[in-house]
Amino acid sequence: MRQQPRPGTAGSSGPVTEGARPDDARRHNRAAVLRRLHVDGPCTRAVLTGELGVNRSTIKAVVSDLTESGLVSERLPVRRSGAGRPSLLVVPSAAAAVVLAVDIRVDRVAMALVGLGGQILGRCGWRLRPGTERPAELLSRVLEEAPVLATEVAAPPAGVGVSVPGVVRRADGFVHEAPHLRWAAVPVGARLSAGLRLPVQVANDAELGALAEHTRGVARGADDVVFLAGDIGVGGGVISGGTALRGSGGYLGELGHMVVRPDGRICHCGCRGCWETEVAAPALCRALGLPVDTARGELLASLRELAPDTAARKLDEFTGWLALGLVNVVNVLAPRLVVLGDLLAALPDPVLDRVAAQVRERSMVSRALAHTEVVRSALGRDAQLIGAGELAFAQVLESAVG
Amino acid sequence: MRQQPRPGTAGSSGPVTEGARPDDARRHNRAAVLRRLHVDGPCTRAVLTGELGVNRSTIKAVVSDLTESGLVSERLPVRRSGAGRPSLLVVPSAAAAVVLAVDIRVDRVAMALVGLGGQILGRCGWRLRPGTERPAELLSRVLEEAPVLATEVAAPPAGVGVSVPGVVRRADGFVHEAPHLRWAAVPVGARLSAGLRLPVQVANDAELGALAEHTRGVARGADDVVFLAGDIGVGGGVISGGTALRGSGGYLGELGHMVVRPDGRICHCGCRGCWETEVAAPALCRALGLPVDTARGELLASLRELAPDTAARKLDEFTGWLALGLVNVVNVLAPRLVVLGDLLAALPDPVLDRVAAQVRERSMVSRALAHTEVVRSALGRDAQLIGAGELAFAQVLESAVG
Repeated sequence: MRQQPRPGTAGSSGPVTEGARPDDARRHNRAAVLRRLHVDGPCTRAVLTGELGVNRSTIKAVVSDLTESGLVSERLPVRRSGAGRPSLLVVPSAAAAVVLAVDIRVDRVAMALVGLGGQILGRCGWRLRPGTERPAELLSRVLEEAPVLATEVAAPPAGVGVSVPGVVRRADGFVHEAPHLRWAAVPVGARLSAGLRLPVQVANDAELGALAEHTRGVARGADDVVFLAGDIGVGGGVISGGTALRGSGGYLGELGHMVVRPDGRICHCGCRGCWETEVAAPALCRALGLPVDTARGELLASLRELAPDTAARKLDEFTGWLALGLVNVVNVLAPRLVVLGDLLAALPDPVLDRVAAQVRERSMVSRALAHTEVVRSALGRDAQLIGAGELAFAQVLESAVG
Repeated sequence: MRQQPRPGTAGSSGPVTEGARPDDARRHNRAAVLRRLHVDGPCTRAVLTGELGVNRSTIKAVVSDLTESGLVSERLPVRRSGAGRPSLLVVPSAAAAVVLAVDIRVDRVAMALVGLGGQILGRCGWRLRPGTERPAELLSRVLEEAPVLATEVAAPPAGVGVSVPGVVRRADGFVHEAPHLRWAAVPVGARLSAGLRLPVQVANDAELGALAEHTRGVARGADDVVFLAGDIGVGGGVISGGTALRGSGGYLGELGHMVVRPDGRICHCGCRGCWETEVAAPALCRALGLPVDTARGELLASLRELAPDTAARKLDEFTGWLALGLVNVVNVLAPRLVVLGDLLAALPDPVLDRVAAQVRERSMVSRALAHTEVVRSALGRDAQLIGAGELAFAQVLESAVG
């Protein structure tokens, strides 16, 4: 039930609003302006007034609050348009709110400090030997690298987001299974928040890829999106009605473990013929006549070097399974947009064209929608890292406005 | 962005609040109390105060408003508990807000007038000859029967909800495809609202089954639910985070058109080996050695008469496909509860037990959730009809409170 805004009850935990005790409405306006600037970049006060549907004096007060807190500044645009005095731009201050993003993959870890506005202020990373990395050691190294990175950039983070290729309990970042890492029952959230003394949020990698594409990639503004990431495994993130779907416990999106070929290969999950057994990296290697554990760089190079007709021929069966699974995904989830990430974004044009055509022709939901589009990720291998940053920012921006 | 409640801007379209011009907060309180009574039945003012988290004087004022409008009355409970003067119950007045529910199926149409509180006040229906019914004739008959039913019950409806086994555009009730009815491009919403001069909402049958089970059936209070209805076709409705999922255009949930057996039978949708070809009525008939067009009653009788070991043997393959598809559904959507409706609710215990066991063992998401439950629908064949009523009530209750 909607409650009347009650003055004086808003939290004042942020570094910003000491003594201000603003009411909920004002706090919400600050959060909305800050989020708008963080996601869509600098703009004038007039634009903020129009987009947020509040009056000019409200925006003036909000921008003044945010300026006082050091979160934004106002300055002249670098490029002027037209004659006359240009309007000031409200610009988010990258260093005023910083998060640590951690992307744990099967073959490497990437870490970045991300500033307000989405700018990557600094990054580091290291390779893993697939399947041999023990969780305790990997998390210890994250704990060691984090302060080094923060010192280099001179920007301490206020929150942490972590991407893990596995089944993650969102409430506390407990990783039930991360099969390709050979992890089971790892308390990633608890371990990192104890070590870093910061709020830590952990989520499934494909969920974060979807969040990144929806916030800063090809799916901006789209309400119904499936992000499908294919690497060593296959996972999906789903945006429905503009909101990320979680499912019970946050476990939604194990699209790779949809059985599509009941007489196929045994999957590590215990089923036979999961989609993942047909369209992840090992299947791609088999199709190209490479060893199944070919390094990512070499596999990508092989894909780039394929002539179009060779690609169509060698990847014929692979293309069929990718299309079949996507028809299923579109029929079940009714997205208007499917974004292919990681290795799937590196598939040659003829393959992607055929997949998109099959979805158009064979999915009854795509026919009703006239049609669901299939596109490549815009963010490439950084999608999950950027998503981890946005996961942390969702919380950090809330606290930053008091 | 949250706005302050602005007095005097609430609509006053309902029959109830002439001249009242209440503010938004009061209107929201009325809507919340009315919805609580409609869904959960009569209770005391003290219970309302506790459940809705507002103070006693607010509830008193709201109940007084609703009583004046004739939507509720207060009366002594029939059964008394304990000594002393019993508290009055606030009781929804069934005839004060009535909707027309229409459930169009492949083999019959059912219509009901449903009163506030969910009571079915009157119903009618007729059989169809599968696949031969033209949409214009069927909708004409709905238009003819509606006033007859309203006269019998002496309760004119204020809104209409319609269930259709097909791909429905929610915005205007346009039916793209209803393959088992052999309908394509039928403007059901426009036709019925023009004929009945009432607001009409149309939705997919499985979506409404999910709504019904979530509001009045086995899925009450569950946040993440998949309702799977198997009849002539197979469809699914999905509740995620307590909210019905729609997908783009409202087309989410064609679970029956997930390909699970790529070398299987050709499906009417154009794919080969859809789940629907393995677990809908014709597949059940084949498994039991009956003609594929066996009438529903006869098929149900055959299921009831099966001895447990015969059921397990004859339905062995059917059970396998049902389990395989459910493992997929649980991995993709992460429900805590799967509700089987229509014919699937009539499957013998040994079959259901085996399906539930396979989901527990083979779905990695079910394992993380420890575990997803698989249960029968509580509402039986009325689920879609009740869901159509609730679809209409969502709008009617909004207007009833002004």
